[in-house]
Amino acid sequence: MERLVVIGGDAAGASAASQARLRRPPGELEVVVLERGTYTSYSACGIPYWVGGLVDGPDALIARSPEEHRRRGVDVRTGTEAEGIDLDRREVAVRDRATGAASRLGFDQLVIATGATPVRPPLPGIDAPGVHGVQTLDDGRALIDALAPDRTRAVVIGGGYIGIEMAEAMKLRGLDVTVLDRGAQPMSTLDPDMGVLVHEQMEAMGIDVVTHADVQAVETGPDGRVRAVVTADGTYPADLVVLGMGARPNTGLAREAGLPLGDSGGLRTDLRMRVWGGDPRHAGIWAAGDCVEVLNLVSGRFQHIALGTHANKQGRVAGMNIGGGYATFPGVVGTAVSKVCDLEIARTGLREKDADAAGFAYETATIQSTGRAGYYPGADKMTVKMLAERTTGRLLGVQIVGRDGAAKRIDVAAVALTARMTVEDLTALDLGYAPPFSPVWDPILVAARKAAQKVGAADRV
Amino acid sequence: MERLVVIGGDAAGASAASQARLRRPPGELEVVVLERGTYTSYSACGIPYWVGGLVDGPDALIARSPEEHRRRGVDVRTGTEAEGIDLDRREVAVRDRATGAASRLGFDQLVIATGATPVRPPLPGIDAPGVHGVQTLDDGRALIDALAPDRTRAVVIGGGYIGIEMAEAMKLRGLDVTVLDRGAQPMSTLDPDMGVLVHEQMEAMGIDVVTHADVQAVETGPDGRVRAVVTADGTYPADLVVLGMGARPNTGLAREAGLPLGDSGGLRTDLRMRVWGGDPRHAGIWAAGDCVEVLNLVSGRFQHIALGTHANKQGRVAGMNIGGGYATFPGVVGTAVSKVCDLEIARTGLREKDADAAGFAYETATIQSTGRAGYYPGADKMTVKMLAERTTGRLLGVQIVGRDGAAKRIDVAAVALTARMTVEDLTALDLGYAPPFSPVWDPILVAARKAAQKVGAADRV
Repeated sequence: MERLVVIGGDAAGASAASQARLRRPPGELEVVVLERGTYTSYSACGIPYWVGGLVDGPDALIARSPEEHRRRGVDVRTGTEAEGIDLDRREVAVRDRATGAASRLGFDQLVIATGATPVRPPLPGIDAPGVHGVQTLDDGRALIDALAPDRTRAVVIGGGYIGIEMAEAMKLRGLDVTVLDRGAQPMSTLDPDMGVLVHEQMEAMGIDVVTHADVQAVETGPDGRVRAVVTADGTYPADLVVLGMGARPNTGLAREAGLPLGDSGGLRTDLRMRVWGGDPRHAGIWAAGDCVEVLNLVSGRFQHIALGTHANKQGRVAGMNIGGGYATFPGVVGTAVSKVCDLEIARTGLREKDADAAGFAYETATIQSTGRAGYYPGADKMTVKMLAERTTGRLLGVQIVGRDGAAKRIDVAAVALTARMTVEDLTALDLGYAPPFSPVWDPILVAARKAAQKVGAADRV
Repeated sequence: MERLVVIGGDAAGASAASQARLRRPPGELEVVVLERGTYTSYSACGIPYWVGGLVDGPDALIARSPEEHRRRGVDVRTGTEAEGIDLDRREVAVRDRATGAASRLGFDQLVIATGATPVRPPLPGIDAPGVHGVQTLDDGRALIDALAPDRTRAVVIGGGYIGIEMAEAMKLRGLDVTVLDRGAQPMSTLDPDMGVLVHEQMEAMGIDVVTHADVQAVETGPDGRVRAVVTADGTYPADLVVLGMGARPNTGLAREAGLPLGDSGGLRTDLRMRVWGGDPRHAGIWAAGDCVEVLNLVSGRFQHIALGTHANKQGRVAGMNIGGGYATFPGVVGTAVSKVCDLEIARTGLREKDADAAGFAYETATIQSTGRAGYYPGADKMTVKMLAERTTGRLLGVQIVGRDGAAKRIDVAAVALTARMTVEDLTALDLGYAPPFSPVWDPILVAARKAAQKVGAADRV
């Protein structure tokens, strides 16, 4: 019987296993998932909300447990680490983490879904008790267990998505929060002129944001626990430290096996999620999720984006193909949404520096509007920045910072980028209008009007 | 000096006047707006929220007053009715409503922005005190003035957008509300299987909804005021009656002048909003707003849609063209959003009966999901129905009924319809994901997956 081995049982791996299972009968295809941890199919994105006390965890964050997968005919082996991939013998070297027992498992098809590894710089004290990552459910549990009335000061290192979400979580738990970011502004996935809005609003919420922070060490007390975070410019007392510095593709196994990695360090696949480096031994090797790099459809470049929604889509595509269907993951446009307390943040497409790097000549337009008719209760200010290619008017990117209803407006831009629309096209879009939901000119349209004028189409729109 | 005359000073007319004014100096173009009422540029869509007490009116609903227009160089003449258009002499016959004085005003360019007229069937008692339309600010004021502690029962005739919004307004004012709708379900802009969800939820809110209601008369008491609404099947006591039966294009002047009307009764224009019926005398005649019909880009058919967002866009396009620019209004995809209390309702594209009428063979897919990650606080159920062309998979329409965050998700479908995407294309869209904003598979994507399976592309998506 043919055997599919999946390395990694979270979003991408479990989706691939499930789809392959659905499409090919158990008598024809054996599906084995090797998971080094104890959970499968969980929402890592939900951890900040669990830590913040908004969500009961960890069970609520688990979409499908190992037992549920097994009931559906997927042989999930938790506590089982893949230690090597032998392409010649088509075997995975496996170790049982509890017993230490080593074994080998043959495969016909292999899905590499090894995820990403949080960045954890080799600073003095980084491994001290009280320094927490937030990638796994065990991480979340450890952080919640570390909360105590006398631990009142949290320092979050990194002001990206995880950083701001964890700042909110610590704030919700009543701690004083300081975010240390190495950039000129938090949220480096935005242009600095939009990031500054996030910075200002976080300060207004009582979250201390330190920019240009060059973190040099984690200082520990006599008990060995974290006591402060030391930067080049100052020392920040801390009872808890949260690491939110992003993640890198976890591709050690793949690299050792000689599989092709892209410039971002992620596995490179084709549209069907096949790993292919020109070597016939790569046939039947698939990859999906945070360990791969994705094609950005706007820049035409590959990049690494660790995001659950891509992992789910890619895993599903791999599983459908393994199951005998035909499916593709065409790429991304770089959409991301987040929030810190009630401030919503969204982006898609290219920032100015991405557009520069990709060689576009472009114009920018930034407008302020509201998410509802100006007179409707709860109408809050929203800032929209739009990038458009100078001569053609092609939409290149949008960034939004605002409150109620701001973030998901980015989806309009995501679809427009996918369809390669111009900003002039955008001005005519038939978007939903009613006073509780939008001004009569949706903020996206207002930005598009201004962008269209700036690209020189003023007389045509 | 050239003179532009605009008939109607609300959204479309005022936008056209403003744009033309901006683009051509006062010494070159005189801009005269004839407005029969006393207000300009107001949000009729906001009236239900003013009546409901959510918004202070009427000033908040006025985007730009006649005085503000005048300061910007637009000669707004309120209380001034256009009574006829003489294409041969290029004059408008004008009457001052206060003095009754008649005059004639020559034009070089003419914008017809006469709006729509609420449907008001010639039933016995329809003009009795206590029966209210809600189209103008004066209507809103009259209804608010009619609220009184002993007037506790409101009957709303019509269960469309205005009807349900006014039902909410009356509910907010503490009245018992009955909505009479002639159809099988309220919200006939949805398919009946989606309308029934609105019906059920309105009943759950304590709003009585009577379907298949054949309204025959408004019954008045000895004081001449409304007392009840009589249908073929029963009599509904009423202290106040609100008419919400939609509106028809107000094209009497245009018809008398021999200008071309479409099947919907609205003025037909080209993409630049020029009225053109093949007669050279039509040169320089423009139309915009609720008095025109629009091209539905999905069905390829013209229809009448009275909606402020279209009126604003069309007026702007006409004004830009009159001002010497080049602008077009390419058409609509039929997007509309609304709400009744906390229930959000959205639609775009074609319903089943529209698809039938347009000759499409299609599949439908209906799914339930949530507007946030299922575990995130406030995650509410959302129902999404999607129509796709059977063989090609082309997206034809989407309808959504749900709560927090449901309505504006329709914008994704609106853009996808504009770009003529397939439902398979939709499954790969890079929409914003974070637990407070969406499940890892956005409800639109879940619906697209199911629709793609049903159109026979199951093995390819």
